[in-house]
Amino acid sequence: MLDKVSGAADIAAMMDALGRNAKSAARALATASTEAKNAALHAMADTILAAKDELLAANAADLKSIEGKGLLPSFIDRLTLTEKSIDGMAQGLREIAEFKDPVGEVITAWDRPNGLQIERVRTPLGVIGVIYESRPNVTADAGALCLKAGNAVLLRGGSDSAFSSQAIHACLVKGLKSAGLPEHAIQLVPTTDRAAVGAMLSGLDGAIDVIVPRGGKSLVARVQNEARVPVFAHLEGLCHIYVDASADLDMAKKIVVNAKMRRTGVCGAAETLLVDKAAAGAVLATLVNDLQAAGCEVRGSANVLTQIPGLVPATEEDWSTEYLDAVISVKLVDGISGAIDHIGTYSSHHTEAVIAENPAVVARFFNEIDSAILLHNASTQFADGGEFGMGGEIGISTGKMHARGPVGVEQLTSFKYRVHGTGQTRP
Amino acid sequence: MLDKVSGAADIAAMMDALGRNAKSAARALATASTEAKNAALHAMADTILAAKDELLAANAADLKSIEGKGLLPSFIDRLTLTEKSIDGMAQGLREIAEFKDPVGEVITAWDRPNGLQIERVRTPLGVIGVIYESRPNVTADAGALCLKAGNAVLLRGGSDSAFSSQAIHACLVKGLKSAGLPEHAIQLVPTTDRAAVGAMLSGLDGAIDVIVPRGGKSLVARVQNEARVPVFAHLEGLCHIYVDASADLDMAKKIVVNAKMRRTGVCGAAETLLVDKAAAGAVLATLVNDLQAAGCEVRGSANVLTQIPGLVPATEEDWSTEYLDAVISVKLVDGISGAIDHIGTYSSHHTEAVIAENPAVVARFFNEIDSAILLHNASTQFADGGEFGMGGEIGISTGKMHARGPVGVEQLTSFKYRVHGTGQTRP
Repeated sequence: MLDKVSGAADIAAMMDALGRNAKSAARALATASTEAKNAALHAMADTILAAKDELLAANAADLKSIEGKGLLPSFIDRLTLTEKSIDGMAQGLREIAEFKDPVGEVITAWDRPNGLQIERVRTPLGVIGVIYESRPNVTADAGALCLKAGNAVLLRGGSDSAFSSQAIHACLVKGLKSAGLPEHAIQLVPTTDRAAVGAMLSGLDGAIDVIVPRGGKSLVARVQNEARVPVFAHLEGLCHIYVDASADLDMAKKIVVNAKMRRTGVCGAAETLLVDKAAAGAVLATLVNDLQAAGCEVRGSANVLTQIPGLVPATEEDWSTEYLDAVISVKLVDGISGAIDHIGTYSSHHTEAVIAENPAVVARFFNEIDSAILLHNASTQFADGGEFGMGGEIGISTGKMHARGPVGVEQLTSFKYRVHGTGQTRP
Repeated sequence: MLDKVSGAADIAAMMDALGRNAKSAARALATASTEAKNAALHAMADTILAAKDELLAANAADLKSIEGKGLLPSFIDRLTLTEKSIDGMAQGLREIAEFKDPVGEVITAWDRPNGLQIERVRTPLGVIGVIYESRPNVTADAGALCLKAGNAVLLRGGSDSAFSSQAIHACLVKGLKSAGLPEHAIQLVPTTDRAAVGAMLSGLDGAIDVIVPRGGKSLVARVQNEARVPVFAHLEGLCHIYVDASADLDMAKKIVVNAKMRRTGVCGAAETLLVDKAAAGAVLATLVNDLQAAGCEVRGSANVLTQIPGLVPATEEDWSTEYLDAVISVKLVDGISGAIDHIGTYSSHHTEAVIAENPAVVARFFNEIDSAILLHNASTQFADGGEFGMGGEIGISTGKMHARGPVGVEQLTSFKYRVHGTGQTRP
């Protein structure tokens, strides 16, 4: 257990050591076999299941330490481990063991006229830093995803789940050792000092290749603003659905309600509904009615209010608001052009969906909107690594460099070129 | 022509406008047809050829302005435009027009059990900032590569070639307009104020997606240290060649001399030769002899000096030195393990080559060295986008994110997901 009172020099020295250990582990992991990595993951799962009592006890200690602090039930909920969630954590590790190992995969290969044979082959990224809040299971999930792709990882969880994360981490290290992998493949960064986060954001003197923040907006914003290394993150999931006049109404009803209400707190939840002015009047009324029946507050633009006067008026701010709640803002737009304009203005470049049967409308939607994920006739709630078939994700990125959309095992890799020659020299 | 005395507020306002214009142009370019982009490139080439006199006159003005400043002949050489280099610039544009357009290419596609069909499709990156020195032709080369991939570009050349760059830029803009593309697709950033570079490095308020520095080490280092946006760059090309005991000696001789001496000033020039201790004594002597005969100064480690006493002794610093000259440092190493250790310590992660006939040696070289380009039985001088078949490159990157190795048209892209549904909602 770490001494809560650490001097600045101590923190710096400790972070330095963490960085060096991570780089050293990354070198070994780059050539670790798929079998060894999978064996480690299964051993981690076994250890976690065998340590249920210890994990629950550690979690109880975390929960006790936040008693009386007036934290919201939803927050406490995210902190809490149960037998079921521990089973889920172990199962997640086994599933990651089943993923295809991306390391060593030949992405593409070609021959040159002079006989050189060039291959672009996947390699690990190196060292990944994950900064997260609340959910202790991220310790296992993120650690495992990084490991599968041959990376070393530095995990910095929230102080509220410190005991839980440490207990989980101990299981992970046992699993690593039993498979002959370096114990520093997965390291915990102490949560007792905020300076540790600053050190991570600076990149730990070149040790960290990329940082993934998992948590609320203020954490993500801080990381995006201060990090001196690349970041995989999204600040907001301000997702739009556009219902075109050519849409199948039954399909639109199901998708719109699912996109908003399946889970309102996820980044893929729809926040704004755009309806084609040329759609029959019944379309708007039906969609609003179904949303309200599902328990959603509907806020309407001026032109929506002329058709459905009883709604809460939407202000300019509503179009830029990610509610993460049972609230949606609705506007009538001038067809696909109007939808593209609105989305182009307010989008957070995460996920947008179009419900339409007119292929020209779909083509424009796909071509002219610059978001990570564009869906036709499907719910925005599919914006998820698991739903994409990646098996899992460490997060969703709205940036355009390296990884966009769900960041799964394959995205936690880089590549290098292998050039096979037979003595060629360059003229 | 810009007023040399500009206030800070003027610079800020001007850079702001450049950024907004670039973003606006990027939106239009994202959906520009391949035909339009190619037509623009050909029109640019035509305009450049027709404007030879103007280009040469502008260049003469640049050369006159640096007279008497005591600049090196090689520097003046890089600044100078000739009829031949202008022809080459135009030809380069036509070649870029022939490249495959990466925008819209479906990188990969797969179906989900629930019927969703997912495509990962290439898109432009957006806005690219290129900061370069000396060579006015970069104005055309870099502008064209970015355009072909559907990006808007901000070009900030050296003040020494300001008139030349402006004249070339005017030709590029004519070409854009004649093809109906936005004139702000390619903008010049004024060279009269260093604050403009700082503004670019800060990302111009989110307008710039990536920066590419082209020039000497101090420029690249400044950009890497100060940029708040991603950078495609390499600081050094400290390339190694390892000659294994299993190498074909004739092949080794040709490759080693080519790798060092073909062009000593390029990033792919070999700077350190590692020879397997187990290689016959004649191997070292032959290689050193051939290098010296080709005009190269050979510096030897202590163990090399015991075999060839007359060499300049190599110091510790030599192993970390990119000579960019007819100088090479040579060391005897303990086989592939010794080579991997040395390269792991001193490499700049750019390009390394192994000359060997033993497949196990080659496999270890390829697997255990973390550089962008690894060659077997071929010269390090092939580290070049043209030689890789990319047609051209905007630079070479040693970073591990997004683009590694030569950065060609395909690397100047991002991607998005198009998900085709038939009404799916998520359970």
